[in-house]
Amino acid sequence: MHPIIATGTGSRWVDGYRAGTADGFDLGAASAADQVRAVDPDVVFLCSPNNPTGTALGLDVVEAVLAASDRALVVVDEAYAEFARPGTPSALTLLPGRPRLVVTRTMSKAFAFAGVRLGYLAADPSVCDALRLVRLPYHLSSLTQAAALAALRHADLLLSTVDAVIAQRDRLVAEPPALGGGGRVHAVPSDANFVLFGGLADAPATWRALLAHDVLVRDVGLAGHLRVTAGTAEETTAFLTALDAVLSEETA
Amino acid sequence: MHPIIATGTGSRWVDGYRAGTADGFDLGAASAADQVRAVDPDVVFLCSPNNPTGTALGLDVVEAVLAASDRALVVVDEAYAEFARPGTPSALTLLPGRPRLVVTRTMSKAFAFAGVRLGYLAADPSVCDALRLVRLPYHLSSLTQAAALAALRHADLLLSTVDAVIAQRDRLVAEPPALGGGGRVHAVPSDANFVLFGGLADAPATWRALLAHDVLVRDVGLAGHLRVTAGTAEETTAFLTALDAVLSEETA
Repeated sequence: MHPIIATGTGSRWVDGYRAGTADGFDLGAASAADQVRAVDPDVVFLCSPNNPTGTALGLDVVEAVLAASDRALVVVDEAYAEFARPGTPSALTLLPGRPRLVVTRTMSKAFAFAGVRLGYLAADPSVCDALRLVRLPYHLSSLTQAAALAALRHADLLLSTVDAVIAQRDRLVAEPPALGGGGRVHAVPSDANFVLFGGLADAPATWRALLAHDVLVRDVGLAGHLRVTAGTAEETTAFLTALDAVLSEETA
Repeated sequence: MHPIIATGTGSRWVDGYRAGTADGFDLGAASAADQVRAVDPDVVFLCSPNNPTGTALGLDVVEAVLAASDRALVVVDEAYAEFARPGTPSALTLLPGRPRLVVTRTMSKAFAFAGVRLGYLAADPSVCDALRLVRLPYHLSSLTQAAALAALRHADLLLSTVDAVIAQRDRLVAEPPALGGGGRVHAVPSDANFVLFGGLADAPATWRALLAHDVLVRDVGLAGHLRVTAGTAEETTAFLTALDAVLSEETA
């Protein structure tokens, strides 16, 4: 989405890369800062967590990127923030005194309210004032505004499923190593409502085998990996049972 | 609005001017075509009718502008089309065989549905296909789509006020010359739900005097002119009565 919108406004888009340690999906504070210095961008987008990897960024990454430029606006996309693991810090905590930092959120995920198309951001008042000058004037329809206000009034109810999703998300991270296939499958730590699991010999083949078990996951084009979204306890069990069977078949 | 959005996309905006005959608000087919040839624009916007003048364009203007360029996309803004006088042709009738013509409409005016922020267009299928490629992906919320579909199912009811508005609009055009002030006030022919009236010695003074009579019209910054929106029969009578009094006071 970010490259498409950047291109639409005549802006050049530069993809960053992940050169941290661990499983290779870690962005890495030093590497991220080096990339920002090399490109000298006007705007930096940091997805925390990124889709499909799912792990939130450490605040050291955000701070390093901010320090690597004296002019770039740094936008931290926290679309999945409500699903973060306990203790995962939000970039919101960095806002005081950092007028080039913007934190974006959405009602699409935790509120299960994607159809309303409502995102929002937190930033220094000077940034918010500047945005009011350049945003399109006919932005959110009256209906969208009314629905969002009603949703906020009932936020406790609408967010009550978040804990249930987190519980299933945690099962999706914890249980794969114990499944068939000799423990070769692992999951990437997730602060989102989806989990990326890896160690697959042939991800498209596993995708097809899971589908034959009536389980549809997402092939995100990452070698050896597939992405699964957390659902109900029954759906999660169905997925884990199917994955166990598929891995056992493959090993057999 | 058009200049603001053009600037926001990094496009240069060139204002056209009205060099037709009559009251000076006529665009003029020959003049419009000359202006298009001189600028060689990528996109031309023709407002039919324009706000605040209110008179729809003749199709000869649209045809002349289309013929004046072999590449420009010509967008005819027909936001007020439902209020057109009988016999006023729509640029929709020109669409067959003219793939560079786009006609835009809105549910904001005749449907009294501005809060839903829903516009639409009619154009050659090749233009519509191209627009699907470049429009923003999260465009109209589910709520907006549902409300618009419901409105369309009840279009007869929602559009039933259009005839009443037209009747008052026609009074606003026909009656001013018979008011006080010796017939010096006239109205510009209108295909919209508003009327521009002129011949005022001091439009801001007339605006203030009308306000003192509890009538609020729009000073659109055009010397000697004010704009009034058609309302109910009672509102229209109140306006005409106040204008008569104000003009008589000015003359006295």
